[in-house]
Amino acid sequence: MMQQQALKIDGDRLWDSLMEMAKIGATEKGGCCRLALTDLDRAARDLFVAWCREAGCTISVDQMGNIFARRTGVEPGLPPVLAGSHLDTQPTGGRFDGVYGVLTGLEVIRTLNDHNIQTQHSVEAVCWTNEEGSRFAPAMVASGVFAGVYELDYGLARVDGDGRTMGEELQRIGYAGSEAMGRPLHAYFEAHIEQGPILVEEGIDIGVVTDAQGQRWYELELTGTESHAGPTPMDRRQDALLGAARVISLVNEVGLAYAPVACATVGMIESHPNSRNVIPGRVFLTIDIRHPEDAVLSQMDQEIRDGVKEISARDNLTGKLEQIFCYAPVPFDRSCVNAVQTSADQCGYRSREIVAGAGHDACFIAQAAPTSMVFIPCVDGISHNETENIKPEWSTAGANVMLNAILDKAGTV
Amino acid sequence: MMQQQALKIDGDRLWDSLMEMAKIGATEKGGCCRLALTDLDRAARDLFVAWCREAGCTISVDQMGNIFARRTGVEPGLPPVLAGSHLDTQPTGGRFDGVYGVLTGLEVIRTLNDHNIQTQHSVEAVCWTNEEGSRFAPAMVASGVFAGVYELDYGLARVDGDGRTMGEELQRIGYAGSEAMGRPLHAYFEAHIEQGPILVEEGIDIGVVTDAQGQRWYELELTGTESHAGPTPMDRRQDALLGAARVISLVNEVGLAYAPVACATVGMIESHPNSRNVIPGRVFLTIDIRHPEDAVLSQMDQEIRDGVKEISARDNLTGKLEQIFCYAPVPFDRSCVNAVQTSADQCGYRSREIVAGAGHDACFIAQAAPTSMVFIPCVDGISHNETENIKPEWSTAGANVMLNAILDKAGTV
Repeated sequence: MMQQQALKIDGDRLWDSLMEMAKIGATEKGGCCRLALTDLDRAARDLFVAWCREAGCTISVDQMGNIFARRTGVEPGLPPVLAGSHLDTQPTGGRFDGVYGVLTGLEVIRTLNDHNIQTQHSVEAVCWTNEEGSRFAPAMVASGVFAGVYELDYGLARVDGDGRTMGEELQRIGYAGSEAMGRPLHAYFEAHIEQGPILVEEGIDIGVVTDAQGQRWYELELTGTESHAGPTPMDRRQDALLGAARVISLVNEVGLAYAPVACATVGMIESHPNSRNVIPGRVFLTIDIRHPEDAVLSQMDQEIRDGVKEISARDNLTGKLEQIFCYAPVPFDRSCVNAVQTSADQCGYRSREIVAGAGHDACFIAQAAPTSMVFIPCVDGISHNETENIKPEWSTAGANVMLNAILDKAGTV
Repeated sequence: MMQQQALKIDGDRLWDSLMEMAKIGATEKGGCCRLALTDLDRAARDLFVAWCREAGCTISVDQMGNIFARRTGVEPGLPPVLAGSHLDTQPTGGRFDGVYGVLTGLEVIRTLNDHNIQTQHSVEAVCWTNEEGSRFAPAMVASGVFAGVYELDYGLARVDGDGRTMGEELQRIGYAGSEAMGRPLHAYFEAHIEQGPILVEEGIDIGVVTDAQGQRWYELELTGTESHAGPTPMDRRQDALLGAARVISLVNEVGLAYAPVACATVGMIESHPNSRNVIPGRVFLTIDIRHPEDAVLSQMDQEIRDGVKEISARDNLTGKLEQIFCYAPVPFDRSCVNAVQTSADQCGYRSREIVAGAGHDACFIAQAAPTSMVFIPCVDGISHNETENIKPEWSTAGANVMLNAILDKAGTV
């Protein structure tokens, strides 16, 4: 493909902004702790808003505290093109998860200013509230309300561990906006670190995100009989932990059977009474399965259900398996995906198609507007960790791809 | 075999004493909570001492608080025959574990009184301090000091969760005796509930205990890499919980390979960070293996070590396996075992040889004196549980066997 001379963002300016933002809630180990709607989140929001105003944007805040910084287009009546992510972090989070997407949105606007580019559609940088879900469950609740997945009342009533609601905390930090929830968007793009090892291991600059995995979450309780580890012969045991071990292996096998895109994980386990010389009588564990196709998820679901039944019968246990949560798979908008791919090609980056394994605000926005994502590598694929890291050139590459995809969708005069 | 007319204890009297003692620390669910050296333990000791004095015994208490109630024999200079167990219980313990052995010792003495029987050797009922190890670790510490397994200073310095030592608590409840630790015994017999399902399932009255299992306890830490359950492909994971699951299956297989007497158990597991959507990066678990032969234990040990190495390599984990504790197997004294077997036959009970799977005071005393044990069934094999239960006729049978074994060893005039 013939490469056009693609417009470029200012990589140093973007990196400086990332480093400046990372000071708010910086941890000793080099990460960030900036939980949603805390004083630190307010400080981060204030800084973002100040930068956006400096860039000439008009700020609006909706009832869930989502912040929109608008660079008005030539035809203000057209629905805008949005670019952003979130500023809140995990308790032991990194400096880039979310923040990178928000500041990339701002950097795109700054670059448009630098070059005096007028777009047909307005371009907005956006910061969604409480993406992580660490302080207020569920995750991505404010983009969910924007997209109509959740009701506004539900969103405002989310409670943290101390009993404070999102509504109260939005008031307290001054981000309970008046803008109504949801409006037509021409397109939404979200730049994000991959949070996995594929791009970095393959030496790829840009992940063109075609789909987000569907997710199904389960809880399993296995009940056997608690008894003394000494005088209870092996063939008379009802060892709930042994059954749990077989379920963990089963879940792994089901994940491998649908690799490479399927994931299947037992993340949490609790065994009772958890004493060295007592055969465990009860085990609780969680199962998380992911795949971009609902039919495959249903197949994985069936195999796990059958396996749990078989294991329970074999080990003389009672198994109670419950699906507690699901996200449907999200196929991203083909024209947005193409815009990202074309932009990556124009910029001359090595790219590949990739599936988003984690939840993102884009997964909800995709239900209301044409959406896609741009992934950049992260060191060792590590995130949700204070050591989370990226290289400045990766940051630059992702923002360049965003810029040209947005220009494509917003249209220039 | 020609059955002699064996002497019999008073089953109702023994049962009444058991029920009376069970009131001290009785729980709502029908069990007992009488932790070592608490006020409740003192009350139980006081009641036992009062009953022994009523039976004409001389009481002595040693420096670890072990109580000896002596019915002096015709030749007071000869070493005594002891019979007993412990009065302390698990936090959610039953009414019979330990108590049954202590009160059977007393019932034997009461029966000797009833029939005006003079024995050559003195007969003593004994209550050992802190057998359970629930309040002060390790278990069986006071019989251990008596047998020379532990030093007295070590025993007195054991600390509970609140930082109080056994020495202080013995003083506080008035059971810091002056008697020196350890002295020659002619024989030691301990009656105990089986704490397993073999006798009750096979419809056997009496277990003639030939050996106590050797025990080896281990701690294993498996370390992988904590990462996001979504974007981390199956083939790039270092899932410590998956490795742990394979170890749990391995331990079970090793136990089964040396069944029926071998036991192998993973009782405790802790997974980090224990979050639904994070691949576990580190898992701690404990392993408990038991067998009456040291050579077999060593073989089991080797198979587990080899297996852990193989699993660590396969799943790309670091495994740190450490043996933290071991009890050597205890073959009980042949003449004491024969005395129990002969007594069971004389009384006309169905009996079988059995291996003690749990630790008992007898396991330590066996290192200093000829020792054996008498097991009676317990309902569903359940103990260390408030629902622990036995039938009065089982209680009677065990005490009858104890009586005649003791008569055999103590000799009559």
